Amino acid sequence: MAAESRPLVPSYIEELTSYEPGKTIAEVNERYQPRKISKLASNENRLGCSERVPPAVEAVLADIQDYPDPIARRLRRKIADRNGVSPENVILAAGSESLIANMFRTFFCEGEEALTADATFVGLYVQAGIENVRVRKVPLDAEYRFDLKAMAKAIDEQTKVVYIANPNNPTGTYVTKAAFETFMNLVPEDVLVVMDEAYYEYARGIKDYPRALDYDYKNLLTLRTFSKAYGLAGFRIGYGIGHADLIHMMMKTKLTFEPTAPAQAAAEAAYDDSSFIDKSLEMVADGKERLYRFFEEYEIDFVPTVSNAVMIVLPDASVTTEITAEMMKKGVILRQATAFGLPNCIRITIGTRDEIDHFMESFSSIYNQLFVKKNA
Amino acid sequence: MAAESRPLVPSYIEELTSYEPGKTIAEVNERYQPRKISKLASNENRLGCSERVPPAVEAVLADIQDYPDPIARRLRRKIADRNGVSPENVILAAGSESLIANMFRTFFCEGEEALTADATFVGLYVQAGIENVRVRKVPLDAEYRFDLKAMAKAIDEQTKVVYIANPNNPTGTYVTKAAFETFMNLVPEDVLVVMDEAYYEYARGIKDYPRALDYDYKNLLTLRTFSKAYGLAGFRIGYGIGHADLIHMMMKTKLTFEPTAPAQAAAEAAYDDSSFIDKSLEMVADGKERLYRFFEEYEIDFVPTVSNAVMIVLPDASVTTEITAEMMKKGVILRQATAFGLPNCIRITIGTRDEIDHFMESFSSIYNQLFVKKNA
Repeated sequence: MAAESRPLVPSYIEELTSYEPGKTIAEVNERYQPRKISKLASNENRLGCSERVPPAVEAVLADIQDYPDPIARRLRRKIADRNGVSPENVILAAGSESLIANMFRTFFCEGEEALTADATFVGLYVQAGIENVRVRKVPLDAEYRFDLKAMAKAIDEQTKVVYIANPNNPTGTYVTKAAFETFMNLVPEDVLVVMDEAYYEYARGIKDYPRALDYDYKNLLTLRTFSKAYGLAGFRIGYGIGHADLIHMMMKTKLTFEPTAPAQAAAEAAYDDSSFIDKSLEMVADGKERLYRFFEEYEIDFVPTVSNAVMIVLPDASVTTEITAEMMKKGVILRQATAFGLPNCIRITIGTRDEIDHFMESFSSIYNQLFVKKNA
Repeated sequence: MAAESRPLVPSYIEELTSYEPGKTIAEVNERYQPRKISKLASNENRLGCSERVPPAVEAVLADIQDYPDPIARRLRRKIADRNGVSPENVILAAGSESLIANMFRTFFCEGEEALTADATFVGLYVQAGIENVRVRKVPLDAEYRFDLKAMAKAIDEQTKVVYIANPNNPTGTYVTKAAFETFMNLVPEDVLVVMDEAYYEYARGIKDYPRALDYDYKNLLTLRTFSKAYGLAGFRIGYGIGHADLIHMMMKTKLTFEPTAPAQAAAEAAYDDSSFIDKSLEMVADGKERLYRFFEEYEIDFVPTVSNAVMIVLPDASVTTEITAEMMKKGVILRQATAFGLPNCIRITIGTRDEIDHFMESFSSIYNQLFVKKNA
């Protein structure tokens, strides 16, 4: 475009950094030729998904030339029934990221801001940047939890939304019922509290875990997803539940035809298969105990988790980068938590027994190479 | 929320009307019990999709727990190769609607406006409203075509994007090479021209149809989709091709993981099956000739089309509403073009021979009921 012309995009778009996609499995295989790959970087369900999903998807393919149901009538009704709300309290969209994008598009007037933690779901920061919403970040507490006391104090007249991931990502921590209830009593009615329960299924059995849908606040929006415990990340489907006024506004701004038709069918089938979720929770509980013992043995700091990932805390960012890179050479793909605000930490998805074995063997050999050598 | 609190949403969101979903096939069946349903309302490919799609999707389901490739490496490369551009000139997203939403999020600075016709793809108007971008609408010409001369004159300092659907929806008309080239010579370099070629496959064989990718303007963005000729509307997948600077900015603002993994696989498979496209084009050519003769016989005005739909022009909006409603009772689902700005018109998707038969039989009986009776 001409030299003297106006800018191509607003400055806040110009300043966004592009998403840096990780290496694909094919790329890791080609470059390092490890004996196997364990993909423990993205908190996907390493068991896969319910066996009811493929036949449900196959049935939909017969009419795949048709646009999806724009309001996902059947699935919306099913989710409403299961959660004791009405369909007008439920919105389906293309994953939690799309719901978060939608939330930023919908609720923010000029100058209004979001408030969250300084180490939480990176999608929140990314979508805020795209919609030019300022995000104020309150440090996590010493146990890597959302510091709700400090956050309540930080709310001011510009605050429109408070975003809480519970359990949090990447830390795996959660806010307790008591902390949540105290917090909600302090939040003004015209501030929207978004509880991102992407890892809900892993935490719902914990006694003092506050399930947001057990509360009846008009200014509370709960986000859930089929990308984690249900094992449908490739399909992009998640849901929001809240007061009908909130959902009504979000229905205006979602893409007309999200989520896709196969995603709706897959989610319906998966949502009915509680035994698959039970098996997935058992796998995570078992893997978690093994990883805890392993890290204790190696004297690696870790943060106790209620999600399907455990985060380890290393001395500094450079050793963290080195370990992540060395583990990839062995075929173990992990996530250094830099984009989440914790560059000295690594998030490890709790996978199958084989994958945990692969992780532990690989980590042991690297540990001996890197640490014992350096300290010798 | 409290009575004196600030507004829940900005006024431009409050004022948006919610999408009114049409009746589902199940609802039409239940209410009217027609002998069959012919869904001719949404310009889907009534032949379905390539038979290569189901096995490609089935293969992806084995890893559906994983997030999609965020930059659709394989499909992006395939589309780039086919069109003689580089992958950095290509963006994949969840259908044309998502690309249009992305375009509004990305390029508009405060006060900048879009310019288009007064009767074109409704998704353009909807997404502009969501992003609070003013759209100036230039009337179509007397033949229901984009009036590019008038549009060139209407460009002013606020104009950031000119949107042209070519072929247009709902009219089925196209702008010629000569009109397009004259127009592009008049457009300032810092105005982006978006050519929405959703119906490209149906028009590309026409001698004076300007395929946007044959031109090398830096300020030209071409949109294509797999929702129409390729028969994958249920999957939500489309692509944009343009200068690397444009695509780079749009890659920053798209959802990280759109389009879905099965959609990427389905599109790859469908894109290679040219014989399915050939068959689809034959069906449309055949159905078009039959409909033209039918409307001539009944002295119904129609607009000659180069897409997979033909639009008829009726005396007024009320008779149009009545005909659309009566046709639905007979199981023929049509689209009155009200949301597109043409309430006295009906858009009819050109379907299979059986569906055209169903349309003609139903229309004949309604015509005799409504018109002959009234004129008797």
